[in-house]
Amino acid sequence: MTLDTISSARAFGGEQRVYRHASAATGTDMEFAAFLPAEALRGEACPTLFYLSGLTCTWENATTKAGYQRLAAEYGLILIAPDTSPRGEGVANDAAYDLGQGAGFYVDATEAPWAPHFAMESYVARELFDLVSAELPVWEGAVGVTGHSMGGHGALTLAMKHPDRFRSVSAFAPIVNPLDCPWGEKAFTAYLGADRATWAAHDACHLVEQAGWSGDILIDQGTADGFLDEQLKPWNFERACRKAGVDLTLRMQGGYDHSYYFISTFLADHVAWHAARLTG
Amino acid sequence: MTLDTISSARAFGGEQRVYRHASAATGTDMEFAAFLPAEALRGEACPTLFYLSGLTCTWENATTKAGYQRLAAEYGLILIAPDTSPRGEGVANDAAYDLGQGAGFYVDATEAPWAPHFAMESYVARELFDLVSAELPVWEGAVGVTGHSMGGHGALTLAMKHPDRFRSVSAFAPIVNPLDCPWGEKAFTAYLGADRATWAAHDACHLVEQAGWSGDILIDQGTADGFLDEQLKPWNFERACRKAGVDLTLRMQGGYDHSYYFISTFLADHVAWHAARLTG
Repeated sequence: MTLDTISSARAFGGEQRVYRHASAATGTDMEFAAFLPAEALRGEACPTLFYLSGLTCTWENATTKAGYQRLAAEYGLILIAPDTSPRGEGVANDAAYDLGQGAGFYVDATEAPWAPHFAMESYVARELFDLVSAELPVWEGAVGVTGHSMGGHGALTLAMKHPDRFRSVSAFAPIVNPLDCPWGEKAFTAYLGADRATWAAHDACHLVEQAGWSGDILIDQGTADGFLDEQLKPWNFERACRKAGVDLTLRMQGGYDHSYYFISTFLADHVAWHAARLTG
Repeated sequence: MTLDTISSARAFGGEQRVYRHASAATGTDMEFAAFLPAEALRGEACPTLFYLSGLTCTWENATTKAGYQRLAAEYGLILIAPDTSPRGEGVANDAAYDLGQGAGFYVDATEAPWAPHFAMESYVARELFDLVSAELPVWEGAVGVTGHSMGGHGALTLAMKHPDRFRSVSAFAPIVNPLDCPWGEKAFTAYLGADRATWAAHDACHLVEQAGWSGDILIDQGTADGFLDEQLKPWNFERACRKAGVDLTLRMQGGYDHSYYFISTFLADHVAWHAARLTG
């Protein structure tokens, strides 16, 4: 597998790169962003954090708006920002912002017309994970995952489904209970079919009760987030964690919304939190 | 004069707002971004920094990409990010990215078809300055200005032309000598006419020799900036400052380009530098 570098810019003593590669999982070319701190440029093995983005995003949103370069440089972390779906003319799509391209939901679709390309769980947790582990100086066993909104759902579910791969997990305003929100019900019906029994394996609330999580979990959620009551419902996850005996820190941040202003405000805490768990 | 708030989001304990207002200087509606730190939200007078953007930008580029909210919050600064030109259907424009809408060059145009609306010097240094001083808790006498590329030209020239208004100045990869670069020659010919004698009043190299500057000046410039040799030529300004006895710190940053990755890397130093001079 080869990585083509499509851009590279110096930032905070490291390099912000964007790569393109042919993906077997999605059957398309995929792009992702990778920040390499100075340590990685010298070839030293670095703890690595995946940042999974939300609906409508590509690698670009977090890469230009979150301010993660400063933090990754400070902690000597590699930061990987994947796309949120396969894209292109031969890839199924939907006019709505919350289905199809830009809305892969980090699951492997089983239903038409999505199944041929929409395999974002396999892509992120296996193919891309293996690719960056092979091609970049990723410190084996020191990989964490975080994400925002749909990407918070991705972070929580991929960590709990692949605990051999992800050692730390946190999220910003995540979808925690897709079985109980309009975004999740719509996407899972399309990608996984009408049988809700198959959905539970991709629902953080169900997963934490079934599979658990050996570490602790950090979630930040803004109280002025317009999606809070209908789509996000972090209290569902808080209840499930309590039942499962999993140590969740849920911080309700007064007056913050769903935007990158919210994410950038609290990202420093998340990066510090992952760094402590990945290198401790 | 009234300010309409078109958006507001909590960030770093303060608020990132975008305002719209009718401008007498440009004869159009103008938008600008303002970050208000917690101190400003409590009504305390705050030192204030104008950030002037480069070609093609609006208030949005720096506001979403520079990471200034964290720094303004840390130092208790108000940060004002204006647009780079008047805009709209009734406003003259050009198909090129470096003339017309998005390319106001912080001068008052005297030539057709630009003169009716392109008055960005009067807009930024007088009208907007007075407006934010009246409507926001700006600490009188503690206002600085910085900017990037065309906005670096704006910062340097507006500071030196209006030293009663701007007490500190710095720049990122500024156009310092528009009389001696293609961007400047093209824009000044269009906005100010063919007589180069009128241009010098808007050229930082000429201004620093004629008007001087009572303080010191900080400039960061990336060595991998593709515009360095043809458009930016910071050594022209270094030479002029030496002649004028003005204390310039020009930092050539190895491997950095012209992007917001460069700006965000060094913005912390600039905000600290302005804060020290505005409150010292």
